[in-house]
Formats: sequence, C-alpha cells, structure tokens
Amino acid sequence: MSRDAEMPREHGGGPARAVVLLSGGLDSATTLALAREAGFACHAISFDYGQRHRCELAAARRVAAALGVVEHRIVSLGLGELGGSALTDEAIDVPTTPTEGIPVTYVPARNTVFLALALGWAEVLGAQDLFIGVNAVDYSGYPDCRPAFIEAFERLANVATRAGVEGRPFRLHAPLIALSKAEIIRRGTALGVDYGLTVSCYDPDAGGRACGRCDACRLRAEGFAAAGVPDPTPYKNK
Amino acid sequence: MSRDAEMPREHGGGPARAVVLLSGGLDSATTLALAREAGFACHAISFDYGQRHRCELAAARRVAAALGVVEHRIVSLGLGELGGSALTDEAIDVPTTPTEGIPVTYVPARNTVFLALALGWAEVLGAQDLFIGVNAVDYSGYPDCRPAFIEAFERLANVATRAGVEGRPFRLHAPLIALSKAEIIRRGTALGVDYGLTVSCYDPDAGGRACGRCDACRLRAEGFAAAGVPDPTPYKNK
Repeated sequence: MSRDAEMPREHGGGPARAVVLLSGGLDSATTLALAREAGFACHAISFDYGQRHRCELAAARRVAAALGVVEHRIVSLGLGELGGSALTDEAIDVPTTPTEGIPVTYVPARNTVFLALALGWAEVLGAQDLFIGVNAVDYSGYPDCRPAFIEAFERLANVATRAGVEGRPFRLHAPLIALSKAEIIRRGTALGVDYGLTVSCYDPDAGGRACGRCDACRLRAEGFAAAGVPDPTPYKNK
Repeated sequence: MSRDAEMPREHGGGPARAVVLLSGGLDSATTLALAREAGFACHAISFDYGQRHRCELAAARRVAAALGVVEHRIVSLGLGELGGSALTDEAIDVPTTPTEGIPVTYVPARNTVFLALALGWAEVLGAQDLFIGVNAVDYSGYPDCRPAFIEAFERLANVATRAGVEGRPFRLHAPLIALSKAEIIRRGTALGVDYGLTVSCYDPDAGGRACGRCDACRLRAEGFAAAGVPDPTPYKNK
C-alpha cells in the first residue's frame, strides 16, 4: 500500500498510467487531483450499480472533465440486484442520525468489486497504479475503507493477474486514508478542485442537492467548517 | 482455503447456505454437485459479462435446474467493455493451437471480479461458504486459478466485509484445484452430473455445439478419454 503517490514511471514514452476510482464524491475528486498532481495520466472509472442517487454519475462526469482525465469509463454492474444496502435497496431507509458500528449504508463488498474491475482495466491499459479515495479517519465504519483492506487487496492483485505474475506489480494508492475530512478539503482546494461539482450525500434530490442530514452530509459539512473553507454544497432545504 | 467442503453448519434452522460460481462449464457444474453433496443449500451465481459465447448462460440455467439450487442469479456486468481478452473482444481471435504462458483467452481479473460479487451476495444471504471451480492442474495458465490466488482472496474477504470483521469468517472452497480433468469427470459422473448440459468451449456455435479445437475443448475431450467416460459433448463438425 502507498499512502502517497510515488513519482510515476514512463509508459511507452508518455507518463505512466493510473486507474482512479471516481464516485463523484468529495474524496474521489481529491484523489484524482492528487494522482494528476503526481504526474500520472489518469484513467477514471465509475460504476452504474443501481445506486439510488443517480446524480453521482453526473457528478463523476463533471469532475472527470474538470480535472482533465485521459479517459472516463462508466461500467454497468448489477450490484443493486444483490440487495442488502440502504444505498441500493429502496426497502432500507437511509439513517439521518449517527449509528453504532457498520451502518446500513454499507454495500456488501462494494470496494472489493470496484477495485476488481479497476484492476482488470489497469491490466488492459498496462497501468500498474490504482487510486482509491478511502479514508479511515472519517470512514463511517465501513470495513473496506481500512488500511488492512487496502493491503490485502494489493496482495491479491499481485497473485490474481498476468501483470503481477510476470513481475509488473500493482500498487494500490489510498492517499486519503490517514487524512481528516478537513485535511482532504484543504489539499483538494490547494489543487483547484471545485467541490461544488461533487455529490457526497446518501439521499440527494434528483438535481443532486444534498439532504444535509445523513452521515455523509454531516462529515462533509464539518470538514468544510474545520478546514475554514466555504462550503459550496447545494442543499435541498436552503 | 479448503480443498474439500466441510460439513456445513446450520443457518437459521435450515442447512447452511453456500454461494457457488456457475459458468455453465464442466468444472463449475461438478463444483455445484460437490457443494450440494456436502449438504449446503446452494445459491448459484452467473455473470452476463459480454462473453462471446452466450450459450454459456443457457447452460448455467440448465445445470442450476438439474442440480436443484435454491436460487440462481445472473448478474450483468460490463466486463467486456474493458476489453483485453479473446473471450470478450471480437478483435482478438481464439487460438486453436496450444500457446506458451498465459493465453489470450485470459480475461483480466475475471475471477477476482466474479468472487467479489459472489462475496457481496454471500454477505447479504448470511452465507459463509463460497465455491469456485478453478483447477490448477489443467488450468490453461490462468493466474487466478492457482492456490495462491484462492488463499489471497479468502484473506481479503475476511477483512473486506462486515461478516469477516464481526467474526463470521468466509471460507473459499476450490474443491477441484488439485484434480485432473479426468478425476473431475469421474467425481461428477458419480454424483449424477449430466455433462451433456454443460458448455466448456471457447468458440461454440449459437446452439452451444463445441468447436473441438480450442484449449478448453482439448482438455475436456482428453479428460473424458482418460476417465473412461463417454464424451456427451455435442460438437459442431460431427
């Protein structure tokens, strides 16, 4: 696992390629800006997985365009068909007050699935670097946002693939993993990320306006306040 | 990793549930029969990932029905959109002679992606057992069919999920991993698997008739011959 992006090596004469998971949220937008700042040619990947908040994908497109990716792919994925999360299952309500332990917004094995697909694309592209915007400080209790998960996935990637077996190892970068939300916002702001383009809310309206009440909204608003950066989030009730 | 299925524990009063990857091929059909024989309530999962040979999914449905699964889900997945394999990319020909090293029929990170989705479903179902029909003897050179891959995925599963973190660990069973094709066929035949329902060929016709020439056909035909079991495979040119 690498917390900080190392300087990329050459790829066929050009800058090295990286695959960056891009959800359309604040964390992944910052991660993309960090990967670009480190000199990678960034290939962004998003997933259309039956998430309730479709405006996430529109946000991912805006962020990819604003940060000048080489390419942005949206991969369709029947994850919602398997059920089990408030984020993909209409029968489960999104909580509006803090909960103990792992919340119902946890989508089973989501980051494992997303990274597996990103890994497959990286192998096709000849990219050895993968970026994911997970964060273990403000992580909302998700098991697949912890350093142990990142380390286990990197180990898996290097036995699961032709590239790994043939001596071109993958590096899984999680540059936000030890940062607070305020630190993430300060880093992204310094790199020119327009957070008004991003959507973090678990329960936004069709136009992408945030509820201001879910876990993700609370963490995000507290982050802007702690960073001393004006909050550009459009809210439903304001 | 478990090579042999252990006796399943109870699940809410009924038999323990297992999620079984079912491709429609000979190996996964045998794996499903072994999981059922071990006493699991089997939930089969297949993937519609843009594979050239759509008749695989019809075969998976036939096998699931014949072996009496509790449920069979086919999850759609834009894996083919990412390219890079003769099995999903029309621009890459399926080889008809043996090749050195990892062949072009390798789909980047395919088993990682499939297991990740199976893991997510297992967590939703409360299943702690996953079955995959990989085989390291006649494995055609795929990195994600080796014991090291199975072990790394099981380790990942137990840090990636709520169940793993909360002390309900997953077991990833690969009961065929050390068997020859002939041994697989003998075991399946003893359990009543009808291999005439399965499709292994990389380049079948629309009706599911096998080419008889690709790596998968060669291994399969040699397996029936070595097992001394009549080959029920329908071939195109016969």
